[in-house]
Amino acid sequence: MSFLESLNWRYATKRMNGKKVPQNKVDIVLEAARLAPTSRGLQPFNILSISDPALLEKIKPIANNQPQITEASHVLVFAAWDDITSEKIDEVFDQVIKERDLPADALDNYRNFLKSHYAGQTQEERFQSAARQAYVAFGIAIAAAATEQIDASPMEGFRNAELDELLGLKEKGLRSVTLLPLGYRDEENDWLLRQKKVRRPKSELVIELN
Amino acid sequence: MSFLESLNWRYATKRMNGKKVPQNKVDIVLEAARLAPTSRGLQPFNILSISDPALLEKIKPIANNQPQITEASHVLVFAAWDDITSEKIDEVFDQVIKERDLPADALDNYRNFLKSHYAGQTQEERFQSAARQAYVAFGIAIAAAATEQIDASPMEGFRNAELDELLGLKEKGLRSVTLLPLGYRDEENDWLLRQKKVRRPKSELVIELN
Repeated sequence: MSFLESLNWRYATKRMNGKKVPQNKVDIVLEAARLAPTSRGLQPFNILSISDPALLEKIKPIANNQPQITEASHVLVFAAWDDITSEKIDEVFDQVIKERDLPADALDNYRNFLKSHYAGQTQEERFQSAARQAYVAFGIAIAAAATEQIDASPMEGFRNAELDELLGLKEKGLRSVTLLPLGYRDEENDWLLRQKKVRRPKSELVIELN
Repeated sequence: MSFLESLNWRYATKRMNGKKVPQNKVDIVLEAARLAPTSRGLQPFNILSISDPALLEKIKPIANNQPQITEASHVLVFAAWDDITSEKIDEVFDQVIKERDLPADALDNYRNFLKSHYAGQTQEERFQSAARQAYVAFGIAIAAAATEQIDASPMEGFRNAELDELLGLKEKGLRSVTLLPLGYRDEENDWLLRQKKVRRPKSELVIELN
């Protein structure tokens, strides 16, 4: 199946059948998200991978009782850093210097530029920027699931603050932005499965300047 | 090449060799972005595909003179709706009703819920929400380019308002959010090509609750 065929095969699965996704498949989705490019390489988010049934039962009402939360095998929670601090920038740059075996001060100009760049923003702006990076990884994770024929249900419809409270994300400096239940479509009961995929036509979406 | 191998093959290409990407390959990237899932299916963005050399020369200084703007074959501009209006929601729902052959009022409850949901937000909040959807498509476009062995340079580093002015985006109700130059790596001159890809380790990025 080509990449485009995979994207056509996938759909926002509304009902899943409870079957477990093998851990090696979940790991492929997580690895794809880990490899996602992010602004300045900061990767300013974490991904929670939740398969504990009792915890998923608690998440379900926070996500408006959408059944795929508990019918899924795993629910990924994309949670952005609530701030981009100098300390976190240093951690990332220190790792780059170590892994690329560079002199300790090799990236100081860029490092200091970035610190001053973010210092000029409000914390909310820094969080919004981090959230956007999480969405790049979210998009690539959705695509990865499709290439592995794993169903997924990209989800923004949940009460973020309540989920953050349940998962103790504030204490970790994180704020949840999206959910991605992973599992297998319930062929019999998913009303959306037989609906035509609707997208704006290319002529409306794309503006070509050649 | 597996999907993960493609993601490992790709990197934020800093120098390109000017070779043209065949239009059918660019179309695959655009189609992948078109197939990206978005909140409520609104697809609240447009993608400009620019290959006009004179226009790319004008964009280059707005993007801090990054050479890949003019060394690329095409530059994709992801531009989010500057607002999510009732009129635009109606356009999307009317299309769904037509393509799925539903009764005209079949989606009225959901349509009205959405209108009232967005009416409770500020225009800036609606734009930010639209921008996040553009980032999902941006992520999937990056992945699509990698699967086709097309190099790409995901880019936030440009002066958005100046680009919007140059491209007349404001009049179209759009605001640029990211750029994606597409082309082929300049093997000799790209300093980043031989640098190790650095990512936070899975143990830091992923929190497993099983």
